[in-house]
Amino acid sequence: MSTRGIKFNTKHLRKGDPLPPYNGKLRLYNMRYCPFAQRTVLALIAKNIDYEVVNINLFDKPEWLTSKSAFGKVPSLEIKEGLSIYESLVTVEYIDEVYPQRPLLSKDPVQRALDKIIVEACTPIQNLYIKLIRFPKTFTEDTVTAYNKALQFLQEQLKIRGTRFFGGAEPGFVDYMIWPWFERVLSYQKIDSRAKIDAEKFKLLLNYLQNLKQDPVVKQYLIEEDVLFKFLEPYKTGGEPNYDLMLDA
Amino acid sequence: MSTRGIKFNTKHLRKGDPLPPYNGKLRLYNMRYCPFAQRTVLALIAKNIDYEVVNINLFDKPEWLTSKSAFGKVPSLEIKEGLSIYESLVTVEYIDEVYPQRPLLSKDPVQRALDKIIVEACTPIQNLYIKLIRFPKTFTEDTVTAYNKALQFLQEQLKIRGTRFFGGAEPGFVDYMIWPWFERVLSYQKIDSRAKIDAEKFKLLLNYLQNLKQDPVVKQYLIEEDVLFKFLEPYKTGGEPNYDLMLDA
Repeated sequence: MSTRGIKFNTKHLRKGDPLPPYNGKLRLYNMRYCPFAQRTVLALIAKNIDYEVVNINLFDKPEWLTSKSAFGKVPSLEIKEGLSIYESLVTVEYIDEVYPQRPLLSKDPVQRALDKIIVEACTPIQNLYIKLIRFPKTFTEDTVTAYNKALQFLQEQLKIRGTRFFGGAEPGFVDYMIWPWFERVLSYQKIDSRAKIDAEKFKLLLNYLQNLKQDPVVKQYLIEEDVLFKFLEPYKTGGEPNYDLMLDA
Repeated sequence: MSTRGIKFNTKHLRKGDPLPPYNGKLRLYNMRYCPFAQRTVLALIAKNIDYEVVNINLFDKPEWLTSKSAFGKVPSLEIKEGLSIYESLVTVEYIDEVYPQRPLLSKDPVQRALDKIIVEACTPIQNLYIKLIRFPKTFTEDTVTAYNKALQFLQEQLKIRGTRFFGGAEPGFVDYMIWPWFERVLSYQKIDSRAKIDAEKFKLLLNYLQNLKQDPVVKQYLIEEDVLFKFLEPYKTGGEPNYDLMLDA
């Protein structure tokens, strides 16, 4: 549960489960372990918005999901009954614009462009994780090379900014958009050397990531390492993950 | 050459070629046949902006390219000396914001989100083309299925909007962002059935694409079919394409 009382860890709805009746609240279709949806969650927490979470079993999707998200993916944000927007970065930009408190992106178009470039540059970090977990056959030497190049670029950009976070003294758009991948990679590198972040070479970056992990927004939605590993276990055999490892009271 | 006198078809610079001296003008690092860079070009033409094109040989890149685009890709937009932004959609959003004439994206955050979702939904069209041309080994049945689903989604969205273009009576963000892929696919489907757009099933969509092809902005930057095929020829063997098939006087 969040400090605001939002219940994150609700049961994941599956085929046959009815669509919860619309109650006028902003609603997020989510999956508790989805790094893309986590981006939207972090933006919502950062802005202290009131909303509700409807968690989705992505292995056995409810029939009504495509009416909320055309491609049956999460996150999807229902902003009024029957009107949903999706794609993680699209939802975050929408949230940032419509809820002006605690701005995540700068008002300056150049700064905003530079932020988006950095997020885009982290795609190889995302790719490495997705390939490790979901598509091991597509994992190659190039996956690791691109990953390390992205880490290098990120560290350089951090050095150029010279601030504690990409967003300045507090985390902003870049920080929250890239965190979900690092949360997973930081855990995963302990059991798979291909995800390793070299401690010597990436000292500044790792120090930054430790600071980000302590951020009050990030802390509210962390997944414990052992829970993550337990969740990921069935992926190896193509089985159904246990979506409800964590449930709010 | 554009109706404004912008020279699009300049020689593509390669390793060893010096960086043209900065002259205070907005500058686009481009490759004449790159569909991503074409997005930026279409936005610049639509807004009737003054700028210059520096074309890049992507097979044998100039040493200075990474100082203009960290990953050595095009498009990159140099907005003042030494300050470049890249990633096609990032450049277009920047242009749309800084040059308010002929707005491409709506001012309404919901409408803007819906536009971006449609562009994102066209990724499988982009993927089909890229796989056909560059990565034939990764081309599968799924590539075609996803392509047809994207075409279907696009046609449905067009029907929902009920306008001539996604942008309304005139093309807007969605139209110009997806056009470069359709320009290629419409040609390519004639020589490869895997890229086929079913004439019966996608009548509305094809009619829309014919209208878009007649748009004065789109027309200024079209590549003739035979030129496209000639350009693509060396890709089959991994050879260097002839970047300078079209040269302005």
